[in-house]
Amino acid sequence: MNRKFILIFSCPDKKGIVAAVSKVLFENDANIVESNQHSAKSVSNPHFYMRIVFELDSLSDEKNIANIKIKLNELSNIFDIKYQLNAVSVKKNAAVFVSKEDHCLYELLWQTSSGDIFLNISCIFSNHKTLSSVANFYNVPFIYIPSDFNVSNNNNCDAVNAADDSNNDLKLKQEQFILNEIVKYDIDFIILAKYMRILSSGFINLCNKKIINIHHSFLPSFPGAKPYLQAYEKGVKIIGATAHFVNEKLDDGPIIEQDVIRINHEDDAEELKKKGKIIERMVLARAVKFFVEDRIIQYGNKTIVFA
Amino acid sequence: MNRKFILIFSCPDKKGIVAAVSKVLFENDANIVESNQHSAKSVSNPHFYMRIVFELDSLSDEKNIANIKIKLNELSNIFDIKYQLNAVSVKKNAAVFVSKEDHCLYELLWQTSSGDIFLNISCIFSNHKTLSSVANFYNVPFIYIPSDFNVSNNNNCDAVNAADDSNNDLKLKQEQFILNEIVKYDIDFIILAKYMRILSSGFINLCNKKIINIHHSFLPSFPGAKPYLQAYEKGVKIIGATAHFVNEKLDDGPIIEQDVIRINHEDDAEELKKKGKIIERMVLARAVKFFVEDRIIQYGNKTIVFA
Amino acid sequence: MNRKFILIFSCPDKKGIVAAVSKVLFENDANIVESNQHSAKSVSNPHFYMRIVFELDSLSDEKNIANIKIKLNELSNIFDIKYQLNAVSVKKNAAVFVSKEDHCLYELLWQTSSGDIFLNISCIFSNHKTLSSVANFYNVPFIYIPSDFNVSNNNNCDAVNAADDSNNDLKLKQEQFILNEIVKYDIDFIILAKYMRILSSGFINLCNKKIINIHHSFLPSFPGAKPYLQAYEKGVKIIGATAHFVNEKLDDGPIIEQDVIRINHEDDAEELKKKGKIIERMVLARAVKFFVEDRIIQYGNKTIVFA
Amino acid sequence: MNRKFILIFSCPDKKGIVAAVSKVLFENDANIVESNQHSAKSVSNPHFYMRIVFELDSLSDEKNIANIKIKLNELSNIFDIKYQLNAVSVKKNAAVFVSKEDHCLYELLWQTSSGDIFLNISCIFSNHKTLSSVANFYNVPFIYIPSDFNVSNNNNCDAVNAADDSNNDLKLKQEQFILNEIVKYDIDFIILAKYMRILSSGFINLCNKKIINIHHSFLPSFPGAKPYLQAYEKGVKIIGATAHFVNEKLDDGPIIEQDVIRINHEDDAEELKKKGKIIERMVLARAVKFFVEDRIIQYGNKTIVFA
Repeated sequence: MNRKFILIFSCPDKKGIVAAVSKVLFENDANIVESNQHSAKSVSNPHFYMRIVFELDSLSDEKNIANIKIKLNELSNIFDIKYQLNAVSVKKNAAVFVSKEDHCLYELLWQTSSGDIFLNISCIFSNHKTLSSVANFYNVPFIYIPSDFNVSNNNNCDAVNAADDSNNDLKLKQEQFILNEIVKYDIDFIILAKYMRILSSGFINLCNKKIINIHHSFLPSFPGAKPYLQAYEKGVKIIGATAHFVNEKLDDGPIIEQDVIRINHEDDAEELKKKGKIIERMVLARAVKFFVEDRIIQYGNKTIVFA
Repeated sequence: MNRKFILIFSCPDKKGIVAAVSKVLFENDANIVESNQHSAKSVSNPHFYMRIVFELDSLSDEKNIANIKIKLNELSNIFDIKYQLNAVSVKKNAAVFVSKEDHCLYELLWQTSSGDIFLNISCIFSNHKTLSSVANFYNVPFIYIPSDFNVSNNNNCDAVNAADDSNNDLKLKQEQFILNEIVKYDIDFIILAKYMRILSSGFINLCNKKIINIHHSFLPSFPGAKPYLQAYEKGVKIIGATAHFVNEKLDDGPIIEQDVIRINHEDDAEELKKKGKIIERMVLARAVKFFVEDRIIQYGNKTIVFA
Repeated sequence: MNRKFILIFSCPDKKGIVAAVSKVLFENDANIVESNQHSAKSVSNPHFYMRIVFELDSLSDEKNIANIKIKLNELSNIFDIKYQLNAVSVKKNAAVFVSKEDHCLYELLWQTSSGDIFLNISCIFSNHKTLSSVANFYNVPFIYIPSDFNVSNNNNCDAVNAADDSNNDLKLKQEQFILNEIVKYDIDFIILAKYMRILSSGFINLCNKKIINIHHSFLPSFPGAKPYLQAYEKGVKIIGATAHFVNEKLDDGPIIEQDVIRINHEDDAEELKKKGKIIERMVLARAVKFFVEDRIIQYGNKTIVFA
Repeated sequence: MNRKFILIFSCPDKKGIVAAVSKVLFENDANIVESNQHSAKSVSNPHFYMRIVFELDSLSDEKNIANIKIKLNELSNIFDIKYQLNAVSVKKNAAVFVSKEDHCLYELLWQTSSGDIFLNISCIFSNHKTLSSVANFYNVPFIYIPSDFNVSNNNNCDAVNAADDSNNDLKLKQEQFILNEIVKYDIDFIILAKYMRILSSGFINLCNKKIINIHHSFLPSFPGAKPYLQAYEKGVKIIGATAHFVNEKLDDGPIIEQDVIRINHEDDAEELKKKGKIIERMVLARAVKFFVEDRIIQYGNKTIVFA
């Protein structure tokens, strides 16, 4: 029996990297079954990115993986390689944030339960109760944090008395509560599946996990609120959706995946919203699938996606 | 033998319009073979738009068309109808403006010469000589107006002494020269097929013809200069092109048609440009085809396209 | 307040139909808000098809609808019109047939529950228990009819002793049982959402309802069993799905809707199946949406879809 | 200055291939800038396919390429590698076969002349005179071989007296004439750009070049004559085109590229033909581009396309 592993790495571009890494894999009995690479041609700072899927005999894979890591660490000194090495058989844990709209959550739950996306949805956070029954049907813990959620009433976190806090203090305490839960559930990354509150930059920094958001427009067109209304008023003939990593600036992080759908003059803003939902959930599901399969590398404000 | 006609009209939305217009057509022996309509639902000013293709027996079509026009003019008093009525067999005349890039011009010349677009390309204006041989091959007059073109040297227009003019005066005189040619060639509309000079608002107003432009981005993303470089730097996963009517604001007129193509991290700005050319020429050709088939109605800053 | 109605009709092509029908509507205070028509140009038998959406004031709509029907019936004598006239506010009732695969059923249940498809899913028939919990979650009756289902054990139908029946007799009795249920649930049409048993031609005839099936290939390529394996072995670069009306010949009925997805040499038959599921459910959902909005007219072995 | 080379190879799948080949390249100062691989998982005969683009310093590239070839030949003994090694800077020579339709020829000539496809179109063969002026405009030799072309009248081939030959003999002699021309023009591969005669299997074998054909349907649907009429009569909602390598069975060779376009009930067979032309020329151009960039490997009756 063979087990599969994914090595994903980046380093300054330099002759011999592929030879060196493939030698390490070969000498440790690995068979390369997929590989992709990209050379970013920036004049001042050319960089190299690679994704390799390899197989090891499961009888000896632990020893071989240990050796491979030792050798890769040695290569780091020569090539300044930064790498991740994951077993394909290990599922990542995601926390999904939702508000009232269900379509993205449904899509993720269905594709996860069918095995089309290889992922644990470990817990669902929401500022509304609306989707708790969906969570229950799929047996996923549903953590309800309304905007007036008083953290001190909850035994699972450090008690604070939020009663006399300003709204902002309350939000920060709620976010601290969420961060604690994220640790508790051993979350690897976060998915914002139409979550209608804005996470503070403090949360984004402290969390230190990749956060994937779905925005319901073809960015950079129509960032911010009511993109379908903006699209309707502009009279575009095609609308889209964009999955991106969250950074501190609203709807501005590195784009992972986009898709579009043709519309026409008959479609008012309400109809655009309906048609857009299908694109939103497909684009988000694809971005999540890319992520759990270690196909995405962020560089600067862009992504490489080895699709 | 039957001859086809296209009636395209708009009016404030009111009960009975379809009945009234179809009665006029029926009483004048017209057989409706295509019809499309749109009700724009604005609360304050609901408007109705319709396109009807009908056939008349060619033995009596002139009399019938004359009668139909009389009746439609009568209806205008009741319904405030604005209409156009064109024979399908009459080709429109277009002036195409180009600079150095050939792909959009080629596409229009091919599709026109093959009959896929039913159109006369009556003349080609350019600020560069580059594409004159293409024009010659297709026997289309090529009017070369370089940026330092001195109008007074040309016998076909009112002589002016441009020698001591400022650049701006020179441009205005060149545009006046173009306007004269447009009259001479009996032009119905103008196509900017990658024309890299900006037409003055004076020209746009005086010309009083629809002007279709192709912009090499998915508007409203990336207006202005170097859209492919902008797209590359933003890291979008899909690029597009937009055909729109020209108004006085750059890249802002009513959108007629758009299309997109998927790209990936391997594509640099140069490669985007190559891939984009295919979309540009397809989108422009479709917009022109819609126009010559009387399928487009502009309303406000948007279009209805009965595709 | 206005109420909307949809008139859909066909007749031999003849001058004056549009005028006559729109006159009827106008004289009964109807305001036409959408209209589409198609003339099928067959030399021997030119036919005309039309779909009109109109509004009536809800205070008097019953009287007006009654009058409109009287007038349309009169027109039937002149133009040989066959028509349907439905109120937009009345939901159609569908029976969904499934086996083990859940993706098409989920898609229909989601889009129905969200209101994106305006439809009652009245009951679900299945030859497997697998999807009963999904049905329960959405509160839809789940009628389990395994291949060895003995109809006589069931109180809801005429008892027969199936014990000594041949398999074929058993299947026919099961189908009779289903037909009885379809009457009981007042079903308007049937959706085969990856139902893996073949309905007998007897059932199809007796049922006398439109049956929409989803086939997991781009028909007419790869009809019958294992289309993804067929596609893989042929080495096509794009796969598709097809929603069609069921007739007595397998995978041959009038095509309603199709869509495709790009694949490549990395995709084995198993991967094609995964990717195809997304197309299957989208295509089926679109076909069902067209049907419930009275947008489909069958003619011969083809369909007109006023999308 | 760097020069780029493309190595494309296949061999039975075995551990260590990537390591061995990348070692050879590294030891000869090559920098790998692109790589793609595919493992075909057949149980009895797993095979490995790879495409590598690498750069060499142009001062020493001849020596390095010679060494790389020596080493690759040595590897052939161990891994049973079959490889091609081409300099990116060397254009391939194509012969294009046409009949009366111009759209595919135009597309190839335009994309070749603009540099979007890096290719010499060395000569054009045709059984009709129709497109000779296009060939002239692009300065490409046009070789006119009508169906009654009497080879003996032509000085460039071995004279035969065709006067009393059967038609079949005449066709074979014409094909022999074409083969001679293909040698004369040093042709690397053949493009059938809507060539409406069927090449004999003798020609295909003797020619011993890859032949790319464009078929105007989404194969395997609608092979043979009049695919648009077939598509119209079937009532499909999407039509397509297929570029494939020619083998001895009509419209059955390994598929290289396909694409589709949405149609509707308004489109008759004539309109399908118009719409299809756009897809045909795009699909053929993409297939040719893949070929000249050494991105296609044939295996069995399928292709790997490292797009």
